[in-house]
Amino acid sequence: MSSVNVGSIALCDFVARMLEQLHVPGDDARLVADSLVWADLRGMPSHGVMRMPTYVGRIQSGEVEPRPDLTVDRRRSALAVVHGGRATGQVAFDRAATVAVEMARDAGISWVAIVESAHAGAIGYFSQRIAREGMAAIVVAASRPTMAYYGARSAGVSTSPIAMAVPASDGRVLGVDMATAAVSRGRIKLHRLTGEALAEGWAVDQHGRPTVDPERASIPQPLGGSKGSGMSLLFECLANVMGGSPVIQPSLTGTLNRHVQGGFVCAIDIEAFRDLGAFTGDVGALADAIKSLPPAEGVDEVLLPGERGDRRAREQQRSGVLLREATWAELTELAHELNVRVPASKEVT
Amino acid sequence: MSSVNVGSIALCDFVARMLEQLHVPGDDARLVADSLVWADLRGMPSHGVMRMPTYVGRIQSGEVEPRPDLTVDRRRSALAVVHGGRATGQVAFDRAATVAVEMARDAGISWVAIVESAHAGAIGYFSQRIAREGMAAIVVAASRPTMAYYGARSAGVSTSPIAMAVPASDGRVLGVDMATAAVSRGRIKLHRLTGEALAEGWAVDQHGRPTVDPERASIPQPLGGSKGSGMSLLFECLANVMGGSPVIQPSLTGTLNRHVQGGFVCAIDIEAFRDLGAFTGDVGALADAIKSLPPAEGVDEVLLPGERGDRRAREQQRSGVLLREATWAELTELAHELNVRVPASKEVT
Repeated sequence: MSSVNVGSIALCDFVARMLEQLHVPGDDARLVADSLVWADLRGMPSHGVMRMPTYVGRIQSGEVEPRPDLTVDRRRSALAVVHGGRATGQVAFDRAATVAVEMARDAGISWVAIVESAHAGAIGYFSQRIAREGMAAIVVAASRPTMAYYGARSAGVSTSPIAMAVPASDGRVLGVDMATAAVSRGRIKLHRLTGEALAEGWAVDQHGRPTVDPERASIPQPLGGSKGSGMSLLFECLANVMGGSPVIQPSLTGTLNRHVQGGFVCAIDIEAFRDLGAFTGDVGALADAIKSLPPAEGVDEVLLPGERGDRRAREQQRSGVLLREATWAELTELAHELNVRVPASKEVT
Repeated sequence: MSSVNVGSIALCDFVARMLEQLHVPGDDARLVADSLVWADLRGMPSHGVMRMPTYVGRIQSGEVEPRPDLTVDRRRSALAVVHGGRATGQVAFDRAATVAVEMARDAGISWVAIVESAHAGAIGYFSQRIAREGMAAIVVAASRPTMAYYGARSAGVSTSPIAMAVPASDGRVLGVDMATAAVSRGRIKLHRLTGEALAEGWAVDQHGRPTVDPERASIPQPLGGSKGSGMSLLFECLANVMGGSPVIQPSLTGTLNRHVQGGFVCAIDIEAFRDLGAFTGDVGALADAIKSLPPAEGVDEVLLPGERGDRRAREQQRSGVLLREATWAELTELAHELNVRVPASKEVT
């Protein structure tokens, strides 16, 4: 597959202008664009600008509100629910992160549930933001059934991702951002494009039988069998059910037939426990100890969670973002539809 | 392998009396015994009474204090640190759960870090207890390096388990209790006894090479590669580092050479978000919808997380606990050493 290279600032601006054409307010449009380009910069195209045709379609169909009636319902000093009013997920999760940080600054900890919003992009974007405020963060997103429930033939739970992050020394952040699925749906789609076989344990076909054929793969398998589907089921309880808007059960019984995503944000003010510098120093020393582990045979370097993505982002901030040609063609077509000028791009083969 | 059958109440009493002989106070001894027998009842022998020789050895060597100087350091209205003073893990985690429930009753949420305690048994024991108080629970334990860090030749992180639980309708609890490893070390040991090959992806040998040979298997692999070791690394940060007593880094650099386990307990009072009955009703409906999913080919019944364990516990509460003969022989020997009368057992072949 050939690719194109686009400057990250131009790409962000381009995506934001398309959203503005659909009446998304400027700040919200830039937030969504920044979240998508952030994922592309880090080498996670499945959560990058390739989502734009879907995002645009949802705004055009009314599933997502460009100017949502988003409300924050504060319960106790440390608890709140963000009712998204069908907001883009980025707008709802960003508001939740802001409220969570503000509440944790007073109470030491906070928990903000998010309901009735849409796809939030890569949720590591929000956990990293909270970590940069000197707090520990746990962020979970929970959506409709898209993943095999362990032992079931059909999708029963969501690929519910969890992101956790803590601040480390020298302004670094140590964080994970992972699905409860063995593989993302985006990766299966990518294999369909290239024809490459899937790995064992990644997906099942429509009869619930494991398959490595990307054409026959219907849905991803949960991470570690019952572990991944169990985590995902509990995340639905801790996110959408706790927030008062269940998603999985009404989807399975056919009473909910539109895209919706909820989640939660938990922030902990590290200074409530320890001096922040002492904490980040210990995290930095831990990271150094992990980096010093002897690599396994055939491995060049032991990597910290997120390290590869950090490096890729630094490179691509300088050199431009590499996008698949098919993604770029879709964006270009969308731009023509929305009457937005397409930025310069270089073909890379 | 043949087995023996022992009544669960007699078994619990037996284990408690051995601990009392080592100067563990009666209530603490019964708590540890109850936690171990709880795991055996549920069919998790790796966290059951087979741990007793190790527990006893740690008390005898001074690694674990039978009468610890355990302190609760309350930080904010919703945050505390339990300093275990080398307590048995069950005693420290039980105190943390009690404090967490009490704090969450006021603040809506609480986070209690646990440091300087020992192996806590199956941590689902504590998340289930919190759920029965009408709260959602997240419990994590974090210990010394026992699991391969992804890409490294040697152990770099702990098999850090996470347990989550919420109350469901009819007094039920929906919960998961899982290691961040692909498999427990106890299960590898069990395969060594039976000679049965390990599954692919479970363990690596001393060179960091994947192996299915239980004799060559040195340490478990992380769940889902970088996902499991990333989660475990973050749990060390959220538990021991946040509580001010790092475990992994000093273990890797050789300055910490004794058994130690920390963790955290997070409790959320569901009534701070919603009517508890409405919540448990929604969780019950979700559980029913999952049970109604069509089973995959070759699967008889779709199971909820913990369902098999719940059933096994109900059966074994009536019929007695099945223990491996080797476990029973070790306990019997220990009892003779400690001058404790061995309860009646039936051989089962």
